[in-house]
Amino acid sequence: MHLNVFVMTTGHHEASWRLPESDPYASIDLAHYQNVARIAEDAAFDSLFLADSPHLPGPVRRRPWGMLEPLTLATALAAVTERIGLIATVSTSYNEPYNVARTLASLDHLSGGRFGWNVVTSPDLPAARNFGLSDLPSHASRYARAAEFVEVAFKLWDSWADDAIVGDKAAAIWADESKVCPIDHVGEYFSVAGPLNVPRPPQGHPLLVQAGSSEEGRQFAGRYAEAVFTAQQTLPGARAFAEDLKARAAAFGRDPSKVKILPGLVPIIGSTTAEARALEASLSELISQEYAQGQLASLLQVPVSALPLDGPLPFADLPPEESVEGARSRFSLVVDLARRENLTVRQLIGRLGGGRGHLTITGTPEQVADEMEAWYSAGAADGFNIMPAVLPSGLSVFCAEVVPLLRKRGLFRSEYAGRTLREHYGLDRPAVAVPAGNGDQRQPRLGSERLV
Amino acid sequence: MHLNVFVMTTGHHEASWRLPESDPYASIDLAHYQNVARIAEDAAFDSLFLADSPHLPGPVRRRPWGMLEPLTLATALAAVTERIGLIATVSTSYNEPYNVARTLASLDHLSGGRFGWNVVTSPDLPAARNFGLSDLPSHASRYARAAEFVEVAFKLWDSWADDAIVGDKAAAIWADESKVCPIDHVGEYFSVAGPLNVPRPPQGHPLLVQAGSSEEGRQFAGRYAEAVFTAQQTLPGARAFAEDLKARAAAFGRDPSKVKILPGLVPIIGSTTAEARALEASLSELISQEYAQGQLASLLQVPVSALPLDGPLPFADLPPEESVEGARSRFSLVVDLARRENLTVRQLIGRLGGGRGHLTITGTPEQVADEMEAWYSAGAADGFNIMPAVLPSGLSVFCAEVVPLLRKRGLFRSEYAGRTLREHYGLDRPAVAVPAGNGDQRQPRLGSERLV
Ligand SMILES: Cc1cc2nc3c(=O)[nH]c(=O)nc-3n(C[C@H](O)[C@H](O)[C@H](O)COP(=O)(O)O)c2cc1C
Ligand SMILES: Cc1cc2nc3c(=O)[nH]c(=O)nc-3n(C[C@H](O)[C@H](O)[C@H](O)COP(=O)(O)O)c2cc1C
Repeated sequence: MHLNVFVMTTGHHEASWRLPESDPYASIDLAHYQNVARIAEDAAFDSLFLADSPHLPGPVRRRPWGMLEPLTLATALAAVTERIGLIATVSTSYNEPYNVARTLASLDHLSGGRFGWNVVTSPDLPAARNFGLSDLPSHASRYARAAEFVEVAFKLWDSWADDAIVGDKAAAIWADESKVCPIDHVGEYFSVAGPLNVPRPPQGHPLLVQAGSSEEGRQFAGRYAEAVFTAQQTLPGARAFAEDLKARAAAFGRDPSKVKILPGLVPIIGSTTAEARALEASLSELISQEYAQGQLASLLQVPVSALPLDGPLPFADLPPEESVEGARSRFSLVVDLARRENLTVRQLIGRLGGGRGHLTITGTPEQVADEMEAWYSAGAADGFNIMPAVLPSGLSVFCAEVVPLLRKRGLFRSEYAGRTLREHYGLDRPAVAVPAGNGDQRQPRLGSERLV
Repeated sequence: MHLNVFVMTTGHHEASWRLPESDPYASIDLAHYQNVARIAEDAAFDSLFLADSPHLPGPVRRRPWGMLEPLTLATALAAVTERIGLIATVSTSYNEPYNVARTLASLDHLSGGRFGWNVVTSPDLPAARNFGLSDLPSHASRYARAAEFVEVAFKLWDSWADDAIVGDKAAAIWADESKVCPIDHVGEYFSVAGPLNVPRPPQGHPLLVQAGSSEEGRQFAGRYAEAVFTAQQTLPGARAFAEDLKARAAAFGRDPSKVKILPGLVPIIGSTTAEARALEASLSELISQEYAQGQLASLLQVPVSALPLDGPLPFADLPPEESVEGARSRFSLVVDLARRENLTVRQLIGRLGGGRGHLTITGTPEQVADEMEAWYSAGAADGFNIMPAVLPSGLSVFCAEVVPLLRKRGLFRSEYAGRTLREHYGLDRPAVAVPAGNGDQRQPRLGSERLV
C-alpha cells in the first residue's frame, strides 16, 4: 500500500486554521512545512503532495489562501529530507514546457530522484485572467494542450542520453555531443527546439501524477499518469474508477499495474468513535455557513438564493455536466453525493468542509485501518492520499496510531527500501524514448556562448 | 564595500573543469554548490549570484553546460544557509510575470528576505527557439517587455499590504480583504488581474539586480536596478560607467547612492606575482583554441576565417554596434579591448578565457586588495562581483588571503549586521506603492474556491 500526505497549510479542513493549536501564519512558514515533511518521512510515506493554482483560489478573509509556491517549497523540503518523494503541482495551461521540464529535471537532480509532477490544467477563470486571457480556455483545449505539453517534456528529458556526460579531462571532452540532441518539436500548441540545458534526470522522467477525473482527465491519466489522485466517496465507485483507469492504461499499451490509484482520505481519529465524532463536530462548528454556501453556489453555477440551507439541491436547475468548463468531475461528485445521501444544503456543506468531496473516515485507528484494508483488498485503491484535517497533529496521530496497524497487517513498509520516488511506488525508470545520436543532423545548433 | 560571488559550476574559467581538483559532475551536484555557498557565507559575503539562460548556452563537448536551474538551486542553497543573500537570474522574455513574481515572493519568504532577481532579457536566438519563436525579438522590444514585466511584478508584490494578514481566529478573519487587491494591469505586453497568491515578501520587493550594459540596459538599470553587475576593463571606464548609471538613476528621481555598482573581478592569486602568472598560464593552456575562435567569431558576427590566430581583429569588417541584437555591450567591450591593447586574436582569446571580458587581477593578495581599494576609493565600484576562475578553491583562497586585508583596511564587514539582502547592501525596504483598500471596487473578484 502506498501512502502520500496531502500538505495543505494547517490542514485540509477549511476551518483548521482557527484551532488553538494552529498558527495563522503557517501558510508562509517554512518551518511548519518542514515539520510535516519530517513526520511523514519518519513514517516512511512514499511522498508528499503540494496542490496549486496560479491565482488566489478563494477569499482571503476566510482561509489562509496566501501561500508559498509549491515548486520552491518542495525544493526547500527536499533539502531537509533524505528519502521521501515530493510531488508538486504545475499547470500546463499557463507555463511553457521548456521552463517546466527544466525546473523539474533540476529538482530531480537536487533531490536525488525524488520528484513527481502533478499535471493540472487549472480549471478556474481567475487564473486565466492572470495570464492575459479574458476567458477560461475550454476543458477540451486545456487537456489537448496538457497532452502536448507532457510530450514535449518527455522529449526534453530524453534530449540527453543517460550516458551523455563523459568528463574526459585529458581529451577535453565534457559530454558526447551526439548524445545531446535537439528535439525540434513543432505541434499545435508549442514549437520547441531543445535540447534541454539540464542532463537527464536521475529518474529518467520525474514521476507523472494526475488528479482530474472527468472523461478527458481519465483519458489523459490512462495515457500518461503513473499515480492518480482522486476523490471517491464509496468503495464500489472507487473500484469502478480504478478499473476504468487501468483499462484505459492497458488500451494505451501500458501495464495497468504501473498506474497507482490513490483516493483521498480524510482520517478523523479518536480513541473511541464518539471521540472522533466530537472532533469532527467541533471542526464543523468553525465553518462559516454563509461562506460555504457561496462557494457551493459558485461550484454548482447557481445563484446563492437557489441554495436554501435546509432544503435539497435544486437538481432540476443545475447545468448539465458537459457544460461545466471548470472543475467538471468535482461538480459531478458533489451532485451525486447530495442525491445519493439525500442531503440538505447544510448537511452537504458539513460533508464537504472536511473532505471537500474526499472520503472522510471518522472513527478509531482500527476502523480507519479496516476501511483502508477493505478498499485496498477490493482493488479500489493502490494506496491513499492522506489528507489530514489538521496539520501537523492529524498526521502525527495517523502515523502513531494507524500506520503501526497497517504494518502489523503487512500492508505498509516499515522502512524505505528504495531511494527514488519511482522505487517507492514500484515503478520502472523509463528508457530514453528517442534514441540519441543520429549523426550530423542531430548536432545541437548553437549560437554564441553566453559570455557573462 | 560589497562582495558578491559569481557561482559558475567549477569556476568562471572555461577550462576549470579540466583541472585535477574539479569534479566533471559538479554542475549537477548540489553538495558542490552548498560548499561554495558556505565558504562565501563564512566570509560574510553579501550575496551569491546564479547566472542563467533558458537554453543550452554552448557546445556541451567543451564545457559543463548542462546545469541545475538557478531558482531551484538558489532555493536549495537558502535551505542550508542563514544570512547570505541569493540572487538568481530570470529572463523577462520567456516567462510570465505572475509566475515569476510569485516564485520570487515565495523564495523571499522561504529565505527570510534574502532574495534578489537578476533581470535579463536573454540575448540569444537559441533561447527564442525554445519558446515558439523563430527570430530573436529585437533588443529594444526585449527591454520594453522587461520594463513592463518589472512594473507588473512590483504591482503584484504590492497587491498585499504588509499588514493584510489578521489571523483573528475568534472572528474567523484570516486576512483583511480590503488589503489584498487586484492590480488589473493592462499594458502592451501583459494583462494581469491579480492579486498575487503570496503575501507581500519580507523585503517588500526582492532586490532588483541588472547586468546589461547597452544603452537600453543602462536606462533600464537607472530606472529599476538596485545592484548592477558589469564587465569593466579599466578604472576610468568603470568610473565613467558608475557615474553614468548613477546620473540616470538620479534623473529618474532615485537616490544614486542606492544603486550599487559591482564590476566583475576574476582574482588569480599567488604568493608571488610569478606564481599567480604561472597559475593563469596553466589555465590558459587548457583552453581549446579552435573552440574559442568559433565562439569569438559568433560573438563578433564574422566567419571564423576572418580571425587568423596571430593577426589583429578585422575591425573594418565588424558590424556596427547598433546592428547587434544579442549581447550588444559585450560585443563593444571585446572590440574595445582588442583595439586598446592592440591584441592578436590569440592574445584576445587568452584574455577572455579567464575573465570573459571581466577585469582579471593576477597577483598577490596585496595586489588584488590594492586594486580593489583603488577602484572603490575612486568611485569606480561600490563593491565587486567576485568571479573565481576555479571553484571552490579560488573562492577559498580569496576569502583566506584577500578578505582579511580588506577588513584590516576597514573596507569590508567582519560579520553580518543585518538579516536581509537589502540590509546587507544598505538598501531601504520599499513601501507599498499602490495604497491598498479603496473600498468595493478593489475587492477581489474570485471564482469558485479550489476544491482539491
Ligand atoms: C487530490 C486532488 C488534488 C488536486 N489538486 C489540484 C491542484 O492542485 N490544482 C488544480 O488545478 N487541480 C487539482 N485537482 C483537480 C481539480 O480539483 C479537479 O479534479 C478538476 O475537475 C480537474 O479536472 P477534471 O475537469 O478532469 O476533473 C486535484 C484533484 C484531486 C483529486
Ligand atoms: C556579471 C554579469 C552577469 C550576467 N548574467 C547574465 C545571465 O545570467 N543571463 C543573461 O542572459 N545575461 C547575463 N548578463 C548580460 C549579458 O551577458 C550581456 O550583458 C548582454 O549584452 C545583455 O544586455 P545588453 O545588450 O544590455 O548588454 C550578465 C552580464 C554581466 C556583466
